[in-house]
Amino acid sequence: MAFYSKRDLYFQLFENLQATSLINNPLFQDHSKETFELVLDAADQIAHSSLYPLLTEMDRNEPQLENGSIKVHPGMKKIISQFGNDGWINATFPFEEGGQQLPNIIHQAAGFIFQAANYSASVFPFLTTGAAKLIRNFGDEEMKKTYLPNMLNGTWQGTMALTEPDAGSSLSDLNTTAYPTDDEQVFSIKGQKIYISCGDHDACENIIHLMLARIQGAPKGTKGISLFVVPRQRTDTGESNDVLTQGIYHKMGYKGAPIAHLMIGSNDGCLGYLVGEENKGLQYMFQMMNEARVGVGINACAIGTAAYHAALEYAKERPQGRKITDKNPELPQVPIIEHADVKRMLLFQKSVLEGSLSLLLYCCYLTDLIHSGPEEQREDLELLLDLLTPIAKSYPSEIACLTTSSAIQVLGGAGYTTDFPVEQYYREARIHPIHEGTTGIHGMDLLGRKVLIKEGKALKILLSEIKKDLDAAKQMKAMQGFAGQLESYLKTAQNTFTHLHREAGKNPEYYLADATLFLELMGLIVVAWQWLKQASNAQKALENKVGNEEFYTGKIMCIRFFYEYELVKVNSLSKRLISTDKVTVEMKNEWF
Amino acid sequence: MAFYSKRDLYFQLFENLQATSLINNPLFQDHSKETFELVLDAADQIAHSSLYPLLTEMDRNEPQLENGSIKVHPGMKKIISQFGNDGWINATFPFEEGGQQLPNIIHQAAGFIFQAANYSASVFPFLTTGAAKLIRNFGDEEMKKTYLPNMLNGTWQGTMALTEPDAGSSLSDLNTTAYPTDDEQVFSIKGQKIYISCGDHDACENIIHLMLARIQGAPKGTKGISLFVVPRQRTDTGESNDVLTQGIYHKMGYKGAPIAHLMIGSNDGCLGYLVGEENKGLQYMFQMMNEARVGVGINACAIGTAAYHAALEYAKERPQGRKITDKNPELPQVPIIEHADVKRMLLFQKSVLEGSLSLLLYCCYLTDLIHSGPEEQREDLELLLDLLTPIAKSYPSEIACLTTSSAIQVLGGAGYTTDFPVEQYYREARIHPIHEGTTGIHGMDLLGRKVLIKEGKALKILLSEIKKDLDAAKQMKAMQGFAGQLESYLKTAQNTFTHLHREAGKNPEYYLADATLFLELMGLIVVAWQWLKQASNAQKALENKVGNEEFYTGKIMCIRFFYEYELVKVNSLSKRLISTDKVTVEMKNEWF
Repeated sequence: MAFYSKRDLYFQLFENLQATSLINNPLFQDHSKETFELVLDAADQIAHSSLYPLLTEMDRNEPQLENGSIKVHPGMKKIISQFGNDGWINATFPFEEGGQQLPNIIHQAAGFIFQAANYSASVFPFLTTGAAKLIRNFGDEEMKKTYLPNMLNGTWQGTMALTEPDAGSSLSDLNTTAYPTDDEQVFSIKGQKIYISCGDHDACENIIHLMLARIQGAPKGTKGISLFVVPRQRTDTGESNDVLTQGIYHKMGYKGAPIAHLMIGSNDGCLGYLVGEENKGLQYMFQMMNEARVGVGINACAIGTAAYHAALEYAKERPQGRKITDKNPELPQVPIIEHADVKRMLLFQKSVLEGSLSLLLYCCYLTDLIHSGPEEQREDLELLLDLLTPIAKSYPSEIACLTTSSAIQVLGGAGYTTDFPVEQYYREARIHPIHEGTTGIHGMDLLGRKVLIKEGKALKILLSEIKKDLDAAKQMKAMQGFAGQLESYLKTAQNTFTHLHREAGKNPEYYLADATLFLELMGLIVVAWQWLKQASNAQKALENKVGNEEFYTGKIMCIRFFYEYELVKVNSLSKRLISTDKVTVEMKNEWF
Repeated sequence: MAFYSKRDLYFQLFENLQATSLINNPLFQDHSKETFELVLDAADQIAHSSLYPLLTEMDRNEPQLENGSIKVHPGMKKIISQFGNDGWINATFPFEEGGQQLPNIIHQAAGFIFQAANYSASVFPFLTTGAAKLIRNFGDEEMKKTYLPNMLNGTWQGTMALTEPDAGSSLSDLNTTAYPTDDEQVFSIKGQKIYISCGDHDACENIIHLMLARIQGAPKGTKGISLFVVPRQRTDTGESNDVLTQGIYHKMGYKGAPIAHLMIGSNDGCLGYLVGEENKGLQYMFQMMNEARVGVGINACAIGTAAYHAALEYAKERPQGRKITDKNPELPQVPIIEHADVKRMLLFQKSVLEGSLSLLLYCCYLTDLIHSGPEEQREDLELLLDLLTPIAKSYPSEIACLTTSSAIQVLGGAGYTTDFPVEQYYREARIHPIHEGTTGIHGMDLLGRKVLIKEGKALKILLSEIKKDLDAAKQMKAMQGFAGQLESYLKTAQNTFTHLHREAGKNPEYYLADATLFLELMGLIVVAWQWLKQASNAQKALENKVGNEEFYTGKIMCIRFFYEYELVKVNSLSKRLISTDKVTVEMKNEWF
């Protein structure tokens, strides 16, 4: 069973993005295309041999809370140590810290393969990586020595402990409290955390929470939040650190990963260790969160991709019905992939998912350029990445709900049964528009913040990047039509934003009311841009007759499909965005 | 927990549709608004006391196949006999046949309440009604005497047994075979049936399959299909009739209803009784299927409605975040219904679902007019209903997948957990675009058949019905803007169809390639029309100051929302439909 296309991933990395050029930067100079491919091959091998075989089993046998501890699928222990031992958790860490100094884009591409194979299983090590990076970037030497070795080899699990019962989307309302002790770096923590992914389980020996809390007396709101390391068991004595598992969430999908409700210090016995400076917790966390948000986009894209491949395989094999032009019942039935409507559903999945992947890998590539490229480019690249992040998180997350639905539809009744994996993918895709900031939150982040920073500088950078690719595309006869279309839709998008922006000062509530629609519109534009790049590169390959004509022709069909069926939606979104009818703002609760 | 709005249902039936006027027709003359309300009150009472309490339990404890028999939730036995004893199964049957001679619209409105409370449970009696109607309409007297009493009182379950492993969407490929016996009405049946809803269970004493099969030697294709009654146990001796339950399907949702895989006559011991004439099976079945298809739309709408009410309740109670205009963290958080984006999601659900319900009840009303109204109107009404049926089946089915998703999004992380019912509604909604003909099949039915019949007569009838309501709306100042918009979108729709139709003769494959999009476009138009009717009636009530201003204002907000956010999509659909790029037809399998 194919769950992703290696050919496409390689195209995206090495033909569309030129990821190999990263080795020209000193940070990655010890790498080569060969080492990148070795990494991806290794990921492919683990995905097929360890992860995919547990996909269904982990869904059917959810983690359970027994006597205050969560038990996960017994196979996870081996998987996590394999990830630890093979160097996946710290793959992007510097050589001198035991890492492989791997570009983020290659690490994330490997992650894409893991997630396509088994999303739940892939979550455990990736969470540890995120938590470990926080300690590495902001913790002191002793803290690093205490935690990193066991986290990086998979013995201990890392988590991000943010959400509380009264503070989900509204992080400023966090009220887990850190009380000072005699040691100024050590605090006594009290509070509750909910929805903590991998917040407790028996596949690791300890759980290391990177937890946000408010030091007693700290300012209200986001300015008074600090970051702590809070282990489940004390690392010196191995005794309980009074982090109790109060409950486990049973979820619609993504069942293999345990999500815990934690009581912190309810017996006054929980010690937390301050990371970095006081009241800078949210700032530290956000550095990780940008990466985590692009990561969520990749998760969603990977799940959608797995569903697409399952649907494609089924469509090629399942005979049903006949061509419209010859309904003679004496003829054998044709495979359903012969029907235009089935091809439409498959092209929809292929085009929006490969377009998403292209955007996501581009964001990863930007992080690598930011870390390894010339200092003078850094600010622009950071602004661009900040602008693209809410789009790269949300577009794939929203669209994967639709592509997995489309995959079910290709299978028909069979797709609704548990005999095929597509229904599981549908359930697993649905978490992504929610976690790491809901789509609504990202809409407000984009329209209420990112496009406004430095008088719209980020937007200008984006436009100039798009313009470069437009200009190049216009040089190719086969691309001129697409370039012209994108240019025209881009103008619509710009006019829409100009209109909105003019109104912003008058009434910020009106301005932001349809931020989610603006986010959707920008998603279409940005993915259309990515398609212009992909199609231009595919067209070059076709013109240069490098072989693999079928693959490249598929890319050309995708841009045609995306522009015909998806990009056209910009018009109705724009029409709504510039409308004067403020129906959602004016709606009153009692009228529902 | 509210799972539907009684106020809205009454508005739809008695203010928007004037269902009470049906009592002017002789068939319904013994009824009154009071008897209709008694029926709906009784439905409300059963829904609250018997159905809703088992909603979650039936999902968590799926039917199981044990020793060749399927066991369902033990509560179903009581529910089915309640439905039988209280006269729900044959509510629309004539008085002289023991029924209540109830208009279909009232029966379906009661069904809507049941389905909103517990979709799986509601399926059992409604299937029996459908099967019993086939026997009643096409069976002979002896057959009626043998089967109807026990079916109608809930002792026996009825099913529709169509689908086979090689014949799902392609019914012409059915090959379950009926071999003649000495008795010309009795056949020996052999074959397999899959996806048979309620095809076997222990809450009834026998299962009566209304089964399609091909008499030995009958023509291939749809012309050689006959309808049989095939009981699971022989009704005379109580012995097995060789209908064996080979398997049970485990499904993503809709888990409370058992779906069986049946082996028919594998020991040569299955007797089937011909219903009506040979080779007319599909014709008989389709008479029921039109009703069943509108029924599926109602199912989807009911599930969506239940999810909407769960989301609405949560949004009113859950404090999170603050108004955009005052972010002071010292202030208490506001209920999330105060946020424009949450109101947008709730208005989306409310407007598309109440618009769907309006269309669906209108279709039911048409069936009542066809059966009870003047003979001379019948043909036109039948053409109109035939045209609307694929839309009434598909629009609510597709949109309920999106509204239940939106309901999850309102709850955020909580919505993804099994602590709230919205994730179950999301899973249950997903079956409706598949069963009783996939959305793709209905697109082809609409564009390839319904709009073409009698030189487009059905379309003309629809347009003249819409025009009546447009003209009336134009008389009301507050409705003129909406009427103008609908008129303009209607013109777009007509131009789109004219364009497609011109091309139809040249290449039928091109013509039908985007039939699904045409179906979507027509759904928007028809629901926008229903909103114009609803809003006009609400506006009248507001102007006449009949009270309940909040309710009627909500309706006006809904038409504003629907026209602003949904109806605008007609333009991009039309743009695609008239495009000359036939990308889905030209796509080749090997390019995927």
